[in-house]
Amino acid sequence: MQIDIQSRDVFYVSDGTAITCETLGHVVLGQFPFKANEKTFPFVESEDKLAELLKEIEASYDRNGVKPLVFFSMVIPELRSKLLASNSYGYDVLESIVQRVQDDTQMKPKPKLQRSRSVSKDSDKYFDRIAAIEYTLAHDDGITLKGLEEADIILLGVSRSGKTPTSLYMAMQFGLRVVNYPFIDDDLRRLKLLPEFEIHRHKLFGLTIDPERLTEIRENRLAGSDYASNEQCLHELQTVEALFRREAIPYINTSSLSVEEISTRVLERSGLRRRLL
Amino acid sequence: MQIDIQSRDVFYVSDGTAITCETLGHVVLGQFPFKANEKTFPFVESEDKLAELLKEIEASYDRNGVKPLVFFSMVIPELRSKLLASNSYGYDVLESIVQRVQDDTQMKPKPKLQRSRSVSKDSDKYFDRIAAIEYTLAHDDGITLKGLEEADIILLGVSRSGKTPTSLYMAMQFGLRVVNYPFIDDDLRRLKLLPEFEIHRHKLFGLTIDPERLTEIRENRLAGSDYASNEQCLHELQTVEALFRREAIPYINTSSLSVEEISTRVLERSGLRRRLL
Repeated sequence: MQIDIQSRDVFYVSDGTAITCETLGHVVLGQFPFKANEKTFPFVESEDKLAELLKEIEASYDRNGVKPLVFFSMVIPELRSKLLASNSYGYDVLESIVQRVQDDTQMKPKPKLQRSRSVSKDSDKYFDRIAAIEYTLAHDDGITLKGLEEADIILLGVSRSGKTPTSLYMAMQFGLRVVNYPFIDDDLRRLKLLPEFEIHRHKLFGLTIDPERLTEIRENRLAGSDYASNEQCLHELQTVEALFRREAIPYINTSSLSVEEISTRVLERSGLRRRLL
Repeated sequence: MQIDIQSRDVFYVSDGTAITCETLGHVVLGQFPFKANEKTFPFVESEDKLAELLKEIEASYDRNGVKPLVFFSMVIPELRSKLLASNSYGYDVLESIVQRVQDDTQMKPKPKLQRSRSVSKDSDKYFDRIAAIEYTLAHDDGITLKGLEEADIILLGVSRSGKTPTSLYMAMQFGLRVVNYPFIDDDLRRLKLLPEFEIHRHKLFGLTIDPERLTEIRENRLAGSDYASNEQCLHELQTVEALFRREAIPYINTSSLSVEEISTRVLERSGLRRRLL
């Protein structure tokens, strides 16, 4: 059986970072069978910038004989109408929803240039976010266990179970202060929680992973090592999961989850609130 | 003059992480004058989970006498219709765009449960992303200058000009390997580039910031210190900007920009391509 796979040129365009357009576009395109050749045009706030984009749209149309898809968000009416008049299928990612919120709330929107997180209007949030990132960096991978009283959550798990990326994502996206601590040989032999963690038991959260996946990840790092062997991975995971169960530490399996999904699940299971909403 | 500020309950709901709903919702709500009391319900994939949400929606309606706003994305038809039947204003963040892409491309979408970045189907991207995060962590704040040949970009700037959060964001979101190096006293006195950077000149990118903003940020960290004083900040910034100009290093001012905006502008100015599109 042959599958008809076509490819399409896709542009993400915004007067801001275009991150919202990309995020939404990825999810929409994930439902369609064609391959997307993607390119992003952020900060399209001038005729010059727009002209560059329009040139690429025309080139794409000439090359493929089919209109490229454009996921966009543009506040300036003149630029918007020129984009809409081009040889492309344009999808305004905000328009229809803004219109409906206006109808439902009977309030008038004030369109403004995209600011994903505006610094000037919200300096406290900026500092909270930076402080969370710094705290999390300083407490990555068990570097220090000082200042645990300031932690929002403490992630535990064997090496390569996803602790560091999850910690950084939670700090960056949710503004949380995250400690992460790897189980190493000594801990595994003693099968005990460090005394430092005792008074912070309610903050503990475990990450685990399937042994096959852990082997794959460790092989990618240190091929052929004992560290990456099936036996070692299985042993570490069994030991740590036994500890989680015995100590009633909540834990999740990260095997098939993205960093975003792990972070969101940890947040949900732990009952923590996002600080940056 | 008194401004009529109302507040509204807002829910972000998805069978996935709900990060797309949040992102889009924030931008939409940024255009409206009311205060949003926000709460996120990720992974609503079961009747039980939905029931929790419906209870909160009813409670919100009873409390406020006005329907809460719900930004959602739900694939399962039964859950979707129950949500739509609740006392809320529902905004499907994908539906209208998916419909239009279907019309335009004449291809049929396959709705699927939300996966922000699916691990299983895309293991290479997962490893690329993790490798970028690790490289960037290992090269934060001038920790080491080994392995610069693997760097995608090298950020330079004085202490607190935004290098670390920008580096981590670029690694996490775009999959780039970022080195960041702070100018310290010695560099500032010599006003010279480190010899290590010479053969990587094309990767250098500067961050600068207004002296007033730098003072504010440093005061937030070390109030009353010389380090945070106006004179010191001004001196460091003048010195570094002179270096950037003399060495023809491109640079941007981060004063009023969010981490997302700085990252996107650096990407754009440097001509780097996102690795995770």
